[in-house]
Amino acid sequence: MASSYSNYTNSPCAACKFLRRRCTSDCVFAPYFPPEEPTKFANVHRIFGASNVSKILHEVAPHQREDTVNSLAYEAEARLKDPVYGCVGAISVLQRQVLKLQRELEETNADIMRYASSLGSETTSTYGRHRS
Amino acid sequence: MASSYSNYTNSPCAACKFLRRRCTSDCVFAPYFPPEEPTKFANVHRIFGASNVSKILHEVAPHQREDTVNSLAYEAEARLKDPVYGCVGAISVLQRQVLKLQRELEETNADIMRYASSLGSETTSTYGRHRS
Repeated sequence: MASSYSNYTNSPCAACKFLRRRCTSDCVFAPYFPPEEPTKFANVHRIFGASNVSKILHEVAPHQREDTVNSLAYEAEARLKDPVYGCVGAISVLQRQVLKLQRELEETNADIMRYASSLGSETTSTYGRHRS
Repeated sequence: MASSYSNYTNSPCAACKFLRRRCTSDCVFAPYFPPEEPTKFANVHRIFGASNVSKILHEVAPHQREDTVNSLAYEAEARLKDPVYGCVGAISVLQRQVLKLQRELEETNADIMRYASSLGSETTSTYGRHRS
């Protein structure tokens, strides 16, 4: 978390420790890579490289850097677990799940419509839901 | 595509062209970065770096390299479009969509159950669907 930095000004951040360099007060990594989470930096370093992470952090506004680091860490961990698909694998799984649910909802709505029409059209409007 | 390489043995692949180096017959990039798709390599190079991509490609089996390159290209493009969330943004959107659809399906099933119970319990089993 961004707030962690002030607690660790005496220790180098996880990035500087990993890169064996001095951690200065303007270190771009320090607020987001506290020393007690060494794996977070090691993962993003292994997948993106320190200079690419630094470049991306400089491209986004300071208030967006924490989210940026967290999404990079998520992507890096996913790629280390699944070198072929990374977090794109999760996207495929979710897309299939959405399609399955949409189909199921359509079928359920069709059931309701059949159900309602067998009882009379005046009840239809109460029960039919639209898929999003 | 992997098959493109044989068509372009006389031209350096997009990676070697970008990196200004000689494209040899054992180039790990050549089968997946044909010269007519220069942006594909430029994107993965910008986000992951050429050496990280090469490292990942060497870690996976040859028959999985095309999928690996395509998922890296997808991730890189997503990160360039959205430097803060990259393709993790798509995961969040899909997760919210799944939750919404599950809730909708639950409500629709509850409607059916209420509908059926008002008509008599013998019809319930025909209409209730289970969420996945």
